[in-house]
Amino acid sequence: MSTSQKLSVQALQWSGHSLKVLDQRLLPETIAYDEYNDAAGVTEAIASMRVRGAPAIGIAAAYGVVLSAMRHYPNADWQSAVEQDIQQLAASRPTAVNLFWALDKMRRLLAQNPAEPIAALTQLAEQIHAEDIAANHAMGERGADVIGDAKAVLTHCNAGALATGGYGTALGVIRSLHKRGQLQNVYADETRPWLQGARLTVWELAQDGIPATLIADSAAAWLMKSGKVDWIIVGADRIAANGDVANKIGTYSLAVLAKQHGVKVMVAAPSSTFDFSMENGDSIEIEQRNPKELLPDCYLNDGSLVDAWNPVFDVTPAALISAIVTERGVVIDPGLHGVRSLAPC
Amino acid sequence: MSTSQKLSVQALQWSGHSLKVLDQRLLPETIAYDEYNDAAGVTEAIASMRVRGAPAIGIAAAYGVVLSAMRHYPNADWQSAVEQDIQQLAASRPTAVNLFWALDKMRRLLAQNPAEPIAALTQLAEQIHAEDIAANHAMGERGADVIGDAKAVLTHCNAGALATGGYGTALGVIRSLHKRGQLQNVYADETRPWLQGARLTVWELAQDGIPATLIADSAAAWLMKSGKVDWIIVGADRIAANGDVANKIGTYSLAVLAKQHGVKVMVAAPSSTFDFSMENGDSIEIEQRNPKELLPDCYLNDGSLVDAWNPVFDVTPAALISAIVTERGVVIDPGLHGVRSLAPC
Repeated sequence: MSTSQKLSVQALQWSGHSLKVLDQRLLPETIAYDEYNDAAGVTEAIASMRVRGAPAIGIAAAYGVVLSAMRHYPNADWQSAVEQDIQQLAASRPTAVNLFWALDKMRRLLAQNPAEPIAALTQLAEQIHAEDIAANHAMGERGADVIGDAKAVLTHCNAGALATGGYGTALGVIRSLHKRGQLQNVYADETRPWLQGARLTVWELAQDGIPATLIADSAAAWLMKSGKVDWIIVGADRIAANGDVANKIGTYSLAVLAKQHGVKVMVAAPSSTFDFSMENGDSIEIEQRNPKELLPDCYLNDGSLVDAWNPVFDVTPAALISAIVTERGVVIDPGLHGVRSLAPC
Repeated sequence: MSTSQKLSVQALQWSGHSLKVLDQRLLPETIAYDEYNDAAGVTEAIASMRVRGAPAIGIAAAYGVVLSAMRHYPNADWQSAVEQDIQQLAASRPTAVNLFWALDKMRRLLAQNPAEPIAALTQLAEQIHAEDIAANHAMGERGADVIGDAKAVLTHCNAGALATGGYGTALGVIRSLHKRGQLQNVYADETRPWLQGARLTVWELAQDGIPATLIADSAAAWLMKSGKVDWIIVGADRIAANGDVANKIGTYSLAVLAKQHGVKVMVAAPSSTFDFSMENGDSIEIEQRNPKELLPDCYLNDGSLVDAWNPVFDVTPAALISAIVTERGVVIDPGLHGVRSLAPC
């Protein structure tokens, strides 16, 4: 399809009995949904990165639990079969905490032995999905309030509608700024090795009529030095109690560079991204993916002297972050304050 | 061919009457040389990046002048025809000064009206080529002396045999360190958008039996934070009198990040890279290449809201550089001293 044909971008579509997942590996050339009827399929969709982005992964996993219950209830031992599926879903990717947060919510509901488990689980999954979209809109407004007017912002990876229930975290802030007429330019890192910036972010923004300029990841410092950018806006995969943020590899680099250039850094993420069990970011598990994502095929032979180091995430210390924005509120200078003030009551 | 089959890497092969240019755009999958018999062909080989790397471009251009003289001498007005070809060669790419340096040398020789111009020009081009190789070996030794033992170094783009007459500038230092047993690991940035690191650097090192680990450009900061790297080693496309260095986009980013992580930065380049006509790096022209190098095809339609910003080089201030290494000598802390001490007498 032509990219000039606008469409509502949805990573996930719930039909009531199946989950349709937009295969984001095929964007922007091809828009194709895969339909899943069981938890194993959803697990595979997450592990293979058909769906990615911390909030979207959490929502997909919640629907995966619904599909599991639909498959196993009311067989004997259906609860332990669902628990096995939950454990499979939890093992699909290690870093984004929203996955575990959503699965815990579903698991706690199951433990309450609802009279009609499928209806109850469905309701909760749909609620998680709807609340994520609402949270994104709230974050968009809060983030835009913090920024006011901006010459330009730079974003990394894709923290948009495609990474969430809809609207987006970092891209939600950008959408809100754009609606208000407070934003002159959007720059997007292409974000190797999966090129989420090139394939997803600029495509998604163009769908909404927002012009965007793509840059090579390594050009970000030179762009900052030019004085063209005043904010970096990113999402998050996990935020520790002190405000340290795990996010796509390269975020730490941007934050260090931003500090040196007087550029501010905003992290926009729903409160489901917080992990108050971790005092700081040191204990966040960083996923390492296959070196093949970086290596040309000809290096994959036995005895090759060429290898790759392919961490998918890094951890940005809170001290390098100017503001953390959630649906519950904003922390300015999290390096001074941590984020416990945004914890649920 | 299999990459396990070792070969002597040569970007340029001069036959005495034609220049063979390794098409580096096809590496590492395919090793193919194109043969050129005139200056227009060599100009195209440089502009299209079949041959790249500041010193290699200079050498290729020198042979281009020889081919021009072979084509036009002793026709009437042969000198002005050669001058036109020199101007074409000079317009092939703007940033690397070695191109203009080599063309100036050839032009000055022409102005001396040698009795046998073809023989004289050939001798000078071969001398430029041979002296570049010798300079690389000298730099390799000097650079290794400065570094001593290293846990690991990180290099960016390709400043190797493929970018020079042979042996390499940054990779010359790495080769010398490796020969001495003073180097544990080599990391290479993949270097978007052309992926010189992934396609050329790790391939070239493997040809010499040197293991290398590829990383995404945006992972460099996270690698430095891990404490695994103690030097960044890069080449240069132009060095101003104060020691500011123009090099592949991303070099400035690495240098800022290195400073913040206590990692040292070495620039290895032949003295032909110096441009003493420029007091500092501010006036160095930075080549902008086609946005297509970054953009998926589907964004190239009319009315697309997606564009790209694609500077090929950036300028690293001398203050961020620990050592500039040339065949003539080394400047430690060029930010304090500039590099005029390495100027020819």
